[in-house]
Amino acid sequence: MSIRIGILGYGNLSRGIENAIRQNPDEELVAVFTRRDPSALKVQTEGVTVDHVDHVKDYIGKIDVLMICGGSATDLPKQTPEYAKYFNVIDSFDTHAKVPEHFANVDRAAKEGGKLAMISCGWDPGMFSLQRIIAESVLPEGKHYTFWGKGVSQGHSDAARRVNGVKDARSYTLPVESAMDMVRHGEQPVFTAREMHKREVFVVLEEGADAAAVEHAIKTMPDYYADYDVTVHFISEEEMKRDHAELPHGGFVMRSGVTGENGKHHEFIEYKLNLDSNPEFTGSVLAAYARAVDRMAQKGETGCITVFDVAPKYLSPKSEEEQRHTLL
Amino acid sequence: MSIRIGILGYGNLSRGIENAIRQNPDEELVAVFTRRDPSALKVQTEGVTVDHVDHVKDYIGKIDVLMICGGSATDLPKQTPEYAKYFNVIDSFDTHAKVPEHFANVDRAAKEGGKLAMISCGWDPGMFSLQRIIAESVLPEGKHYTFWGKGVSQGHSDAARRVNGVKDARSYTLPVESAMDMVRHGEQPVFTAREMHKREVFVVLEEGADAAAVEHAIKTMPDYYADYDVTVHFISEEEMKRDHAELPHGGFVMRSGVTGENGKHHEFIEYKLNLDSNPEFTGSVLAAYARAVDRMAQKGETGCITVFDVAPKYLSPKSEEEQRHTLL
Repeated sequence: MSIRIGILGYGNLSRGIENAIRQNPDEELVAVFTRRDPSALKVQTEGVTVDHVDHVKDYIGKIDVLMICGGSATDLPKQTPEYAKYFNVIDSFDTHAKVPEHFANVDRAAKEGGKLAMISCGWDPGMFSLQRIIAESVLPEGKHYTFWGKGVSQGHSDAARRVNGVKDARSYTLPVESAMDMVRHGEQPVFTAREMHKREVFVVLEEGADAAAVEHAIKTMPDYYADYDVTVHFISEEEMKRDHAELPHGGFVMRSGVTGENGKHHEFIEYKLNLDSNPEFTGSVLAAYARAVDRMAQKGETGCITVFDVAPKYLSPKSEEEQRHTLL
Repeated sequence: MSIRIGILGYGNLSRGIENAIRQNPDEELVAVFTRRDPSALKVQTEGVTVDHVDHVKDYIGKIDVLMICGGSATDLPKQTPEYAKYFNVIDSFDTHAKVPEHFANVDRAAKEGGKLAMISCGWDPGMFSLQRIIAESVLPEGKHYTFWGKGVSQGHSDAARRVNGVKDARSYTLPVESAMDMVRHGEQPVFTAREMHKREVFVVLEEGADAAAVEHAIKTMPDYYADYDVTVHFISEEEMKRDHAELPHGGFVMRSGVTGENGKHHEFIEYKLNLDSNPEFTGSVLAAYARAVDRMAQKGETGCITVFDVAPKYLSPKSEEEQRHTLL
């Protein structure tokens, strides 16, 4: 029988999950829940029910895993504990400082309902976290580095859009190549933010706006830009539509460590993602972990988990024999 | 309390494990077992008992995990099932075609003894297997590639050494860069062996040997060299000692996949190892998995497992809270 999946919310990530489910023959999208008027929402997959989020409890017993696709700032802290009482759930909560609180709340709710709830799934946190824990465990005498990019930072794009005179903006995060090369060559430097990443912003100006003032306002914006080397490009609305409509992203997790007598040998691990579509890849990760959550819940596991708790065998649709035969 | 480890056999891999244990404060090397005369064997770590392999059963209750460091061809198929009756064990069995048989034998023995036994641990199989199963699960519409090198192939070095007129030889496996670039750019080609890897052999000739004949014999050797582009370099004994004494290795696991409507987005995952010391890195992987085996055995798990069965949390010495705080 297929794993029956529900999606709560319908933005970029939800569409990414919807696409990913179509690539997994053992998964089936059953329903999408929205806070808007369900009749106004058209989803891509035929035969999928669209219902109001207020009716989600009517689907108890009809959905194996509910994917909760709200924002980390205000949606998920409320939604995930709420729905973990009734469903096995997965979210992609990524406010790092608030993970302990979110974990505790979700754990309590899921245990109360006898459900399994995974938080912070995706690629970072998610795939990158996996690489960090495995690499650190294997090379305890070492240091790990996470570089992001090249990719669109939606938070930084939004921040640039709030500048006076900016009609539209798209902000890219780029890793500093020379910093990555230092790590690859066995150095274990302590970097500042500026030494690891730079930013590139493409801006469409409002008519009559002062380009120099806009550039200055962006480059000196605290938290978002002031700590980085920033290049600002002014482009037309047409160029924005033509060249910056996609949401690529990616990055690198590296661990540089030593082994042997007096640490004389350098060992280096590098994991790279190069993604044309951040939300579609994230959705693909969530679809694989939905399988794991369903299987682990069937084994009786309850409470809150993260990617650290999932044995890789649960991710694959293959039998364990087939996994060993084709992938070991 | 420390995890008490025993090592069976004392070659390059065993010394790699011994070094790795010193980097893991929660692990302790208790004993090394040898088939030779124990009094003739000097290990690096102070206070470690060296005993004959015939006495290994005297250590039941004194060792938490026994690392079995024999060869895959003849040692491990006998040793791992034998000792899995009495100890939690780990081996690095790497004869891929015989994994099902080995798994079944070890599983039977370990269940009989109520022990947990991990086979095929290291970096390939091992770390690379993990990357393959995770990447395939996340990107089901795609193809994965494993490239090895640059690194010393001991099997190919041995084969070259058996050629008439060769006094010493060291054979390196190298990935073909242009093939890797094709995969990175989103193509999903079907490669021949020659298209993925090339070989470089450094040879010290016996006095009076015919260099051209040696080169021909190596390049045409079936199974080992005939299917690859091979470069043979003739060097002096001094150069061999100076430039080829180490055992570096590494490689790449790549997965190229597509997501979205009609697979319009390319998503690419690449995992790279660049290792100064193959046996020390392998030993480091085994030391991390020894922790996992000990913990999982304490939870009552028995039978045969591989890296696919291990949740990443079991690899790290950190508490689960600390893992989420520092690595998620």
